[in-house]
Amino acid sequence: MSSLNSAFSRVAIVGSGLIGGSWALALKRREFAGRVVVCDRAEVARRALEMGAADEAESDPAAAVRGADLVILALPVGAILEHLPVIHSAAAPGALVTDTGSTKRAIVARARELYRDGALFLGGHPLAGREQSGFENADGGLFEATRYVLSPVREEDLDNPRAKAFQSMVRSVGAEPVTIDADEHDRALAFLSHLPQLLSTALASIADETQLALPLELGAGGFRDMTRLADSSYSVWRDVFLTNADNLKVATDTLIGKLTTMRNRLEDVRLAADFERAQRLRRRWRSAQLQAPDQDAMEF
Amino acid sequence: MSSLNSAFSRVAIVGSGLIGGSWALALKRREFAGRVVVCDRAEVARRALEMGAADEAESDPAAAVRGADLVILALPVGAILEHLPVIHSAAAPGALVTDTGSTKRAIVARARELYRDGALFLGGHPLAGREQSGFENADGGLFEATRYVLSPVREEDLDNPRAKAFQSMVRSVGAEPVTIDADEHDRALAFLSHLPQLLSTALASIADETQLALPLELGAGGFRDMTRLADSSYSVWRDVFLTNADNLKVATDTLIGKLTTMRNRLEDVRLAADFERAQRLRRRWRSAQLQAPDQDAMEF
Repeated sequence: MSSLNSAFSRVAIVGSGLIGGSWALALKRREFAGRVVVCDRAEVARRALEMGAADEAESDPAAAVRGADLVILALPVGAILEHLPVIHSAAAPGALVTDTGSTKRAIVARARELYRDGALFLGGHPLAGREQSGFENADGGLFEATRYVLSPVREEDLDNPRAKAFQSMVRSVGAEPVTIDADEHDRALAFLSHLPQLLSTALASIADETQLALPLELGAGGFRDMTRLADSSYSVWRDVFLTNADNLKVATDTLIGKLTTMRNRLEDVRLAADFERAQRLRRRWRSAQLQAPDQDAMEF
Repeated sequence: MSSLNSAFSRVAIVGSGLIGGSWALALKRREFAGRVVVCDRAEVARRALEMGAADEAESDPAAAVRGADLVILALPVGAILEHLPVIHSAAAPGALVTDTGSTKRAIVARARELYRDGALFLGGHPLAGREQSGFENADGGLFEATRYVLSPVREEDLDNPRAKAFQSMVRSVGAEPVTIDADEHDRALAFLSHLPQLLSTALASIADETQLALPLELGAGGFRDMTRLADSSYSVWRDVFLTNADNLKVATDTLIGKLTTMRNRLEDVRLAADFERAQRLRRRWRSAQLQAPDQDAMEF
């Protein structure tokens, strides 16, 4: 694995939780030739520095961003929206600013207003995660064999050399960039990520009802899988729901409609059609998945 | 690991799919001192014999059961119900007949009528499974570190030496016996197993809707987990739904009610209470899980 020579020489990562911390560790693992500045609350940023994830620690976002040619906003969606103006003011005109927020419409729309001149903004969303958040769960290999969504403000932004350099950097940490419009991203993720989370939390929540008095020792592999996401905290999801409530309501209503039909067909062989459709979806989904990481593609 | 000296000397396993095949392989792995007779369609039973899972292969259940002191009915629930009379007629008066069906009320109720004299019936349900069925997916270690439900016809049956010998055999293949009333089993499993399956199939089924045109490459770890059970076939679940429709309707309605509330609270911090409840349930569930298999407990 060769060291990572990027067009970027100074990367500011604002927020050093699971995703920001993993970005920092991934750059270090790939022997990124530039400097990595991590910005977080003083004690958190210092810890990232001590763990060797960064070259500099900052607690003021404007100071962290100054002189950086790549800025990665790795914060919850609400905090990204709050930080967009100050980052725009502080970032060098030649810098690329990107984010890692789980919804893209609100962020890209706000960036469209703010980033008319100066730094270029490119929306981002790594499709990698864990139920556990925080720098202590960060992993330099988190992005390997995952997809990394890029949602530009304007389609032509993708041809900008900075945007191309960032796509290369995404590949260098093992991920595959996927370009998708912010609206389409949020609609699709409502079905593919946000609804699965809501379902898992709903299932675990009803199983906790004391009047049911369920013997939980009888919950085996299927129950484990279907409630794993329920380990996630509301604080991780709040902003996702706030900025994608319309799409998630449609997705939830679609699911409730399907569940209602299936509930009324428990003693009806027509239920077989839903199982067949679900099995077909799984085959389609599997064929859309990435294979094991390709070492050649990771070189850069 | 010492060889398995059981009170049983001849075990007839009727049905050599995932569960029956795993029972046969588990007994062979534990060097069971008695003989194992596998009964299935001629070519399937022969294959189990060729794979070393059994000492004898039969295609006629009555013939397979004759002379056995333990009979394990490892068939779908509907087929178990069909076979109960002929097995009762063919089994030796001193035999124990048990089953592996995923619902217990209908089977135990039918056994209560039939097994008034002669062989003793003890309902069973190993909480071990895979999405893939059939002997080709059978595994001699399938039951290790899992729970094995026993639902007696009459509570006092559990004190019968044959029932005690079967509990020891269950332990010898690595599982922990759990005694539970058939009604309570079916009510609990509606929430802990049957509803999770219905949810997974419903989620995968709506994602297959062509008018949604979802970019499935954006479905990541959460989507994978929540649709894994959707690989299961309707044929595996049909009898479960038919014999537990009442409980599963209650469970599904409870979930739909919760989802509806959560859908209406996507922009309301009261949603936090459901996440907290779900996280608490996960902690409770984890503390109810078995630890890694205890080698001492497996000796027999």
